[in-house]
Amino acid sequence: MTYDLWYWSPIQGRGEFVRLFLEALGQTYRDRTREDGDDALMADMDRHRQVYAPPYLVAGDTVVSQVATILLFLADRHGRGGAGDARYAVQQIQLTIADVVAEAHDVHHPVGVGDYYEDQKAEAARAAAQFRTDRIPAYLDHFEGAISPSGWLVGEGWTYADLSLFQLVEGLRYAFPTRMAAIADDHPNVGRLVARVRDLPEIAAYLQSARRIPFNEDGIFRHYPELDGA
Amino acid sequence: MTYDLWYWSPIQGRGEFVRLFLEALGQTYRDRTREDGDDALMADMDRHRQVYAPPYLVAGDTVVSQVATILLFLADRHGRGGAGDARYAVQQIQLTIADVVAEAHDVHHPVGVGDYYEDQKAEAARAAAQFRTDRIPAYLDHFEGAISPSGWLVGEGWTYADLSLFQLVEGLRYAFPTRMAAIADDHPNVGRLVARVRDLPEIAAYLQSARRIPFNEDGIFRHYPELDGA
Repeated sequence: MTYDLWYWSPIQGRGEFVRLFLEALGQTYRDRTREDGDDALMADMDRHRQVYAPPYLVAGDTVVSQVATILLFLADRHGRGGAGDARYAVQQIQLTIADVVAEAHDVHHPVGVGDYYEDQKAEAARAAAQFRTDRIPAYLDHFEGAISPSGWLVGEGWTYADLSLFQLVEGLRYAFPTRMAAIADDHPNVGRLVARVRDLPEIAAYLQSARRIPFNEDGIFRHYPELDGA
Repeated sequence: MTYDLWYWSPIQGRGEFVRLFLEALGQTYRDRTREDGDDALMADMDRHRQVYAPPYLVAGDTVVSQVATILLFLADRHGRGGAGDARYAVQQIQLTIADVVAEAHDVHHPVGVGDYYEDQKAEAARAAAQFRTDRIPAYLDHFEGAISPSGWLVGEGWTYADLSLFQLVEGLRYAFPTRMAAIADDHPNVGRLVARVRDLPEIAAYLQSARRIPFNEDGIFRHYPELDGA
């Protein structure tokens, strides 16, 4: 089975959580928009009436959108999503990560998702202050306590939620380097988990490949220095 | 099995999506915070290190949080979540509904989730304008096209996603009555689905019971007249 992943071509964005899992699983996939362009994405998406937005994954006749649902689908086929009721534990953590991702995006688009950042800089500055001061620590404190004695979130090995927590922390470090450096020592379990994910052989190879798009200011995690601070 | 639902006591909020499914399934549950108070919720939640926020459901030794994951858990046990790969279709729609719910909340809290609405009214007015004009139609157009020939979202009978779409539309009608009335005719499939959910015997009985908390301005869907408009 070759999977077709469809997502906006020039960014990591939400597609990256899917890419990381496919790479870590060693699954073959085509990153279709990077091959065929965003016009092809728009044309293809029109055919899937229950898909609201990219990313989505096409596997034969099955089409799945929403990051957490794609990860659930892949884990049900290939593992690494927990066993038995632990499946729900992994998925609930994934949705909490998704909540942080949405908040991180809203920091630079607090009042108009359809407007440019440049048109809402004053509001973004206010949103960023609370996100940096209150929200990042609240979430990282939570993940710090949620990590199991194994060093992974759920069970004795990595799951897709660990990969997603890695991506979240890397994104926050890119967008808010000063703030993240200031509180790095507060979350040693999180720091160790992120390092372990980075060192997984499949992930290490992926991160050094051309398939890994660099963070940039069109994505979810954007480094606007005026929004960072200790 | 009696389920224990834990959620903030005086609001529908995100807990309502779980209540609606438990009620429609005819499952016995205890709405624990309404029995024992918010202090009991805070004390209980401290025991569950992987739960970031209410609502969460306790079923014997299993604890599940995040609305969509709770609904998935219940559907895996009791049905009404789609069969085979349709399970992913139902779940992805649920997550799109969750995205709208989050946006509806952020309209009255655009720059500071920890601050009061009264401290961000100017920003909220700007956020509300785009939410009313662009976002509500975009999402309702999507759901209108996503509904199957059966009149339900997925398959031939109702699933938890249909219940959640009902709650979403009812919430938007409460919060933005002028706007929702202005565009009501644009989404006939959605209107019929909402009416069918309201008429399900278990839902009709629930809505008339004291268990259904009225919408109010402490919840997600808040009616601030200054944020509504045609």
